[in-house]
Amino acid sequence: MRRALEAARDNVNVLPNPSVGCVILDDSGQELALGRTARPGGPHAEADALAQLGGIAQGATAVVTLEPCGHTGRTGPCAQALIDAGVARVVYAIDDPHPAAGGGAAMLRDAGVHVESGLLADEVREQLAPWAYRYWHGRPYVTWKYAATLDGLSAAPDGTSKWITSPEARRDVQRFRAECDAIMAGTGAVLADDPRLSVRDENDLPLPYERQPMRIVVGETTIPNYYRVFDRVAPTLLIQSREPRDVLAKLMENDIHHVWLEGGPRLAGAFWNEGVIDRVIGYIAPAMLGSGRAALEGEATTLADLRPIEIDDLRTVGPDIRIVGTPGPPPREAMGKGEGYE
Amino acid sequence: MRRALEAARDNVNVLPNPSVGCVILDDSGQELALGRTARPGGPHAEADALAQLGGIAQGATAVVTLEPCGHTGRTGPCAQALIDAGVARVVYAIDDPHPAAGGGAAMLRDAGVHVESGLLADEVREQLAPWAYRYWHGRPYVTWKYAATLDGLSAAPDGTSKWITSPEARRDVQRFRAECDAIMAGTGAVLADDPRLSVRDENDLPLPYERQPMRIVVGETTIPNYYRVFDRVAPTLLIQSREPRDVLAKLMENDIHHVWLEGGPRLAGAFWNEGVIDRVIGYIAPAMLGSGRAALEGEATTLADLRPIEIDDLRTVGPDIRIVGTPGPPPREAMGKGEGYE
Ligand SMILES: NC(=O)c1ccc[n+]([C@@H]2O[C@H](COP(=O)([O-])OP(=O)(O)OC[C@H]3O[C@@H](n4cnc5c(N)ncnc54)[C@H](OP(=O)(O)O)[C@@H]3O)[C@@H](O)[C@H]2O)c1
Ligand SMILES: NC(=O)c1ccc[n+]([C@@H]2O[C@H](COP(=O)([O-])OP(=O)(O)OC[C@H]3O[C@@H](n4cnc5c(N)ncnc54)[C@H](OP(=O)(O)O)[C@@H]3O)[C@@H](O)[C@H]2O)c1
Repeated sequence: MRRALEAARDNVNVLPNPSVGCVILDDSGQELALGRTARPGGPHAEADALAQLGGIAQGATAVVTLEPCGHTGRTGPCAQALIDAGVARVVYAIDDPHPAAGGGAAMLRDAGVHVESGLLADEVREQLAPWAYRYWHGRPYVTWKYAATLDGLSAAPDGTSKWITSPEARRDVQRFRAECDAIMAGTGAVLADDPRLSVRDENDLPLPYERQPMRIVVGETTIPNYYRVFDRVAPTLLIQSREPRDVLAKLMENDIHHVWLEGGPRLAGAFWNEGVIDRVIGYIAPAMLGSGRAALEGEATTLADLRPIEIDDLRTVGPDIRIVGTPGPPPREAMGKGEGYE
Repeated sequence: MRRALEAARDNVNVLPNPSVGCVILDDSGQELALGRTARPGGPHAEADALAQLGGIAQGATAVVTLEPCGHTGRTGPCAQALIDAGVARVVYAIDDPHPAAGGGAAMLRDAGVHVESGLLADEVREQLAPWAYRYWHGRPYVTWKYAATLDGLSAAPDGTSKWITSPEARRDVQRFRAECDAIMAGTGAVLADDPRLSVRDENDLPLPYERQPMRIVVGETTIPNYYRVFDRVAPTLLIQSREPRDVLAKLMENDIHHVWLEGGPRLAGAFWNEGVIDRVIGYIAPAMLGSGRAALEGEATTLADLRPIEIDDLRTVGPDIRIVGTPGPPPREAMGKGEGYE
């Protein structure tokens, strides 16, 4: 299962598919094949692994991170493919939360395949969360990225903010962005910085159109058509709303699983206050600015409004500090006001 | 020399004396004694080491971090003590910058002792900087400590700020404070938080009066006498000025070597803008506040005012992040205005 999970983690971004890993073992526990899910249209992890064996795995064990699907989408049901290949035993980590895709385990059992689940479930749940969140909680998974100085500032008083952090940090951002299927910013950030909101490779060349996340601009102000967010590198969606829950609903309609919230401080503050940020990635430049715009414009009035972030990873990236964390629950009062913490 | 330096580093706070280490070796390089400078009134490192040998070290080598002093203060000149003990060779790292204490190397040479200097000079210079800064640059060494959230805030909008960081971070602060000979805050911070500005041990008991740094309150507002800064735990000096250079001159008059600037944001901002902060120790609570008072209230207007900080150490202290850094030079314009970077 660890090998399957690692294959899933190392995979390219396959959203809206889940990144799944599958290992096929013979009865001595020897690995016969290792598969992973491809981008939409390509094979799922089980099919990828079976194809390496010519579709035949008589008496073998399939170890899969996610319950094999039981429905026919662009590809046939994986549960059926495993049955057809003669697999005797299937071990998976977590149930498929996709409303249409579930039922694979039952299909396998009905065909006499021995099925177990739960192995490394916590780790797989975490790895699949950005994909699965919409099925679990009815909204996309939100990663908020910010760049700030040590004194928490994202822009100087005159609005200049470009490249507070180092080239290394900016390259690192591209790698994370590439894992999402939407990159979102407010009209304020777009008008101030004219960001591309697209994913580039090491040579600053954009990835192919079909691998670009959808660009999302939130707010009522019209953005002139010569802004770079309208170049032909990636699709762009304008959401003329100021309600985070409404914005998230629009993203659901557009089949978004994992949105990268790039800022600016007011849009991020609105999402923060609503308690709908699931992961924070902060790049902190080891520098002080002294005055300027905060990275987050929120609504705290007293210290009791402090919202803890559990640090998952702390390291330096080039000269900068990078923090990856998970926000804790919002303070009580905010929970009373809103829809509570999911 | 490394052993002498480590002895000097491990020493208790001996300000206004320099924390010096001295190793005496026989001609086979065997260590005979290890000494370190005591608090004022006690022996210097050389005398401490020689005392362990009954004052006799015929033909031996003395390795000392700082040039042995050549003047009579509360103790006799160390250079003379080394000569009297019969030491044949003295190796030291850096020259004594103290205007009265210098001349020890010349005194030793005149007595026929072989003298060398410069070994591990950079490391010793760094270790002794807080003590030596006033001789090198005419003002005390300034360490600025702040505590803030990830979004750079030190207090909520309603002024509540106490204990943004963890008990572990607060204990860590005590250890650093104990290395200074003054702890300074503005009237704003004193009136808002009623801090003790004294050094406590692990049981929250104050260190003895004679080991307490001097407390410094800066600003023109009168602090009522029931504030804790006026308790009998440590001496307190009020400096009714708003000019950082003037404040530093007053500290010089009071024989301060190393001042711990505890805040608040306006006093810290004034020192920051003046370019007179030599070390930054930041405790960052992994939490977001959203709105409140910044840790530093400075004067930046554009991103070109960004002041880099070289990170010397980055680690977690309990749940918090601790950054120890050295500020880079102020931006060009500020250098033109002020007295330049030292
Ligand atoms: N360093 C960084 O990580 C970073 C990243 C991005 C931006 N920035 C800086 O941030 C500054 C821009 O700040 P900003 O706050 O104007 O940018 P912003 O948050 O991108 O945009 C604010 C706009 O977002 C829209 N919006 C949608 N929902 C909202 C809500 N619930 N609450 C408030 N606004 C909502 C509104 O647009 P309408 O008014 O059009 O309805 C609002 O005017 C620039 O200086 C930029 O350089 C820094
Ligand atoms: N988290 C932390 O690390 C931390 C530490 C300390 C304070 N705080 C918080 O900071 C807040 C207090 O902020 P503050 O800015 O009022 O505190 P402050 O910086 O301690 O005090 C400001 C006062 O300092 C005096 N001052 C001296 N030289 C100055 C100069 N060059 N420029 C400006 N002022 C100068 C002035 O006093 P006069 O007006 O009397 O002349 C001024 O009013 C409180 O909420 C406190 O809790 C946080």
